[in-house]
Amino acid sequence: MSDNLSAVGVLGTGVVGETIAARLAELGHDVLIGSRTAKSDRVVTFADAAAHGHLLVNATGGLVSIDALTAANTAGALDGKVLIDVSNPLDFSEGFPPKVLATDRESCSERIQAAFPQARVVKALNTMNMALGVNPRSLPATHSTFIAGNDDDAKADVRALLRTLGWGDEEILDLGDLTGARGLELYLTLWLRLMGTVGGPTFNIHVVRD
Amino acid sequence: MSDNLSAVGVLGTGVVGETIAARLAELGHDVLIGSRTAKSDRVVTFADAAAHGHLLVNATGGLVSIDALTAANTAGALDGKVLIDVSNPLDFSEGFPPKVLATDRESCSERIQAAFPQARVVKALNTMNMALGVNPRSLPATHSTFIAGNDDDAKADVRALLRTLGWGDEEILDLGDLTGARGLELYLTLWLRLMGTVGGPTFNIHVVRD
Repeated sequence: MSDNLSAVGVLGTGVVGETIAARLAELGHDVLIGSRTAKSDRVVTFADAAAHGHLLVNATGGLVSIDALTAANTAGALDGKVLIDVSNPLDFSEGFPPKVLATDRESCSERIQAAFPQARVVKALNTMNMALGVNPRSLPATHSTFIAGNDDDAKADVRALLRTLGWGDEEILDLGDLTGARGLELYLTLWLRLMGTVGGPTFNIHVVRD
Repeated sequence: MSDNLSAVGVLGTGVVGETIAARLAELGHDVLIGSRTAKSDRVVTFADAAAHGHLLVNATGGLVSIDALTAANTAGALDGKVLIDVSNPLDFSEGFPPKVLATDRESCSERIQAAFPQARVVKALNTMNMALGVNPRSLPATHSTFIAGNDDDAKADVRALLRTLGWGDEEILDLGDLTGARGLELYLTLWLRLMGTVGGPTFNIHVVRD
């Protein structure tokens, strides 16, 4: 990971954003969190967080990400940036489990990439509880995490960041270009069901091969 | 598994149906394969295969299963039967990868159950290559397989059958009622992508928990 990725802007103040921001700060990153309105020295506007970060994380809800990123993109703050999209298109309007508003022909990540063509979007860390995603060694076995994106250099940066979080290189599976985000988002329907079977969110899948 | 489940009707003559039929015959089941038209002593009509089996396997393509099962259901041959649905709603009309025509609000299995309310549908074995599904120990590690259905006795029969194929009891995860089939079918979009990353179909996921 380039040194200049030490400055991170995490967009979104929900539990996902707070979790990844806290972990990145623990690892020594200079993190600002972006919100609709500034709240403190650490929680600033989307635009200020995006201007601050050389690496950006979209941790807003997948259904409102375009709005949040439009606010963040003041003065072209997304241009050229690596934008890790951890969002999922979950609609909680009818309760739990939420609807998963993806299809095998579209994804949140692709909509974001299309809306902000100068950003370098990489889908990552959307397939598990974020507490586990940023502390993968809290599970006592090998498991898998996925990346997808159109820019190989951006994926290399995200892979390096995942390594610093504790992921083994062989645990990081590259699904190719950003259309790989479709399967990663659709998987949430199975994930939500598995959460009921397992009895909580602390689980993940490992891709086992021969 | 009840002794009377030794007679099996496998509906569908594609590679999926042939693979599961061969393995069940190897295990001592009395297997007939159902097809649109009878071809041999072993490959008979859908109706004859359904009448023969106390346990039935839907191995037709998910988009044509209702038609095949309608043919199979002559004289109520599906009534009361355990019907293992291994199908997936794959549309190859525009090439590879196929479209996965499921949503988080419907599945092939539920459509089948609704069309044949007297059958006891259990979704199983749709999330991996069937050669692996019927020979799980061909992978050198623990991995996971899933069942979903509305009838607990039917699920117990399917679990017992999976055990005879080589699945460990702890590897079989019960996702609850048949709406669990939605996530299992939607997962195919990720599976198809993973096949490209892994470089072939011989892989599966293991649900890792703490």
